[in-house]
Amino acid sequence: MSEAEAFTYRPIGIIHSPHTDPEATPVQGAFARGVRGVVEVFPPYAAGLKDLEGFSHVYLLYHFHLSCGFSLLVKPFLDVVERGLFSTRAPRRPNAIGLSIVALKGIEGRTLHVEDVDILDGTPLLDIKPYVKRFDEVRNPRCGWHEGIDEETAARCGGRK
Amino acid sequence: MSEAEAFTYRPIGIIHSPHTDPEATPVQGAFARGVRGVVEVFPPYAAGLKDLEGFSHVYLLYHFHLSCGFSLLVKPFLDVVERGLFSTRAPRRPNAIGLSIVALKGIEGRTLHVEDVDILDGTPLLDIKPYVKRFDEVRNPRCGWHEGIDEETAARCGGRK
Repeated sequence: MSEAEAFTYRPIGIIHSPHTDPEATPVQGAFARGVRGVVEVFPPYAAGLKDLEGFSHVYLLYHFHLSCGFSLLVKPFLDVVERGLFSTRAPRRPNAIGLSIVALKGIEGRTLHVEDVDILDGTPLLDIKPYVKRFDEVRNPRCGWHEGIDEETAARCGGRK
Repeated sequence: MSEAEAFTYRPIGIIHSPHTDPEATPVQGAFARGVRGVVEVFPPYAAGLKDLEGFSHVYLLYHFHLSCGFSLLVKPFLDVVERGLFSTRAPRRPNAIGLSIVALKGIEGRTLHVEDVDILDGTPLLDIKPYVKRFDEVRNPRCGWHEGIDEETAARCGGRK
């Protein structure tokens, strides 16, 4: 493995949401409670959705398609000072992969109805993974600079990037 | 956006762990409690690690470098029947991206010391994101076919894929 190695991924679907303005899209699903979206999985991958509807929450991995370039220091919309990129969820990353947890409300054919969507309309989907409590539950996390942000500020800033 | 569109990602680092045998690697960090690993971030990206040490847990996104091809139905190692791929965390996926939550024990320069590592030694790192309670906490999840797997079985099978 070398730094020059490259991996090529292709979209397996597309995410539809009410968020069409990058400047007004909530930064994470927790600030988009109740916002509904639709995930369309392309036909070649539809058979892989079997058994998924038993899960109340799923991870969506996607490509930040409007992101261009990256900075290693960024000023998060929730904060007033520059932070290291990897301590943030900012979209401009060396590999522009986004990660959101959404509530899965139902599946019809190859269409997933999801809630708590903070993702821009038209975003290319890379993967779906189930949220599994025994793998993913974190007890008593320490959350770095986020701990200095009160809930009121978070809620106020949540709708603006 | 079309199905033919492709995204190219390059490793930003490499993950070192005691797991050298794909057949014996725990399937997720929850079955690898206490297993230590080291994440080496390549020099061009080191500045992005600022502020990360305030977080007790991080997501690692990585490329399943030994995975080849995919099946839309897979028999999870924890189960005896075939499940839809997207209801599993199996490595053979259309886009072979892995996702693990690990405990961050410390950072020295561009080296992260992590725990609860279920990742193969030599795995190319794609991204690091902080675990943020206000974004990522899921209360009372329903976990589909996983709910039929008792903890004893999970613990027994945890070390084998």
